[in-house]
Amino acid sequence: MVQDPDCLFCRIVRGELPSTRIDEDDRTLTFMDINPASDGHSLVIPKAHARDLHDITPEDLAACSVTAQRVAARAVKQLGADGVNLLNCAGADAWQTVFHFHLHVVPRFRDSPDRDSLRLPWTSTPGDPARITAAAELLRATT
Amino acid sequence: MVQDPDCLFCRIVRGELPSTRIDEDDRTLTFMDINPASDGHSLVIPKAHARDLHDITPEDLAACSVTAQRVAARAVKQLGADGVNLLNCAGADAWQTVFHFHLHVVPRFRDSPDRDSLRLPWTSTPGDPARITAAAELLRATT
Repeated sequence: MVQDPDCLFCRIVRGELPSTRIDEDDRTLTFMDINPASDGHSLVIPKAHARDLHDITPEDLAACSVTAQRVAARAVKQLGADGVNLLNCAGADAWQTVFHFHLHVVPRFRDSPDRDSLRLPWTSTPGDPARITAAAELLRATT
Repeated sequence: MVQDPDCLFCRIVRGELPSTRIDEDDRTLTFMDINPASDGHSLVIPKAHARDLHDITPEDLAACSVTAQRVAARAVKQLGADGVNLLNCAGADAWQTVFHFHLHVVPRFRDSPDRDSLRLPWTSTPGDPARITAAAELLRATT
């Protein structure tokens, strides 16, 4: 598998950097965004390094999309989200900041404005670790 | 193929309503958004009716994603976009307004603020038909 030794997300895939993982399959890994736009905001990435939407293989892109669908369903069922946005940013001019493809899965909460600050480009601010962990618990696959 | 007789986008698939098409394959259709957030803003939809991200089959979702990747590449190469955003809105509380799954492909232009008004939720305003057509010409597959 292609890996970039210096890429932040490749290092998360390899376990060299910590992350709060909520889903994993052969091609994809999903973990919580530490600067969440809403409670439950997670990132789906391919395990193989790809810089952005233009660089990812169609197979990995398809796999990331299907993972995002699975995580979005959990956001509704397990987090009580009223809606979900999927967002990909390709290129710095589209607000991409980490250059390893990632698909944002952003739960939306109708009556909870404090839980839902997405206005693109959102102000990236560190989330409360306890809230991130609590959302992660709810977003993991139920057995 | 599943179709909803009253669905706006199903009617576009069937050719009962006009649209400016820029891409088509077995599973997907891509046409210009008539309320564009930026020049070249298009929508990728499955030909089979699916209400939203939760309803679409994984196969159609994967196909829509790969089509979006193809259209995004054209936005960079043929429209001169500096970046591209992909966006899906699942549910009214995530700003979904037409209940047939669609993936927004939004080209971004660094130095052209007038061509780039995406601030979610964007103010949906009719685009200039001539600009939409001009962008469509550039976004169609080159032969």
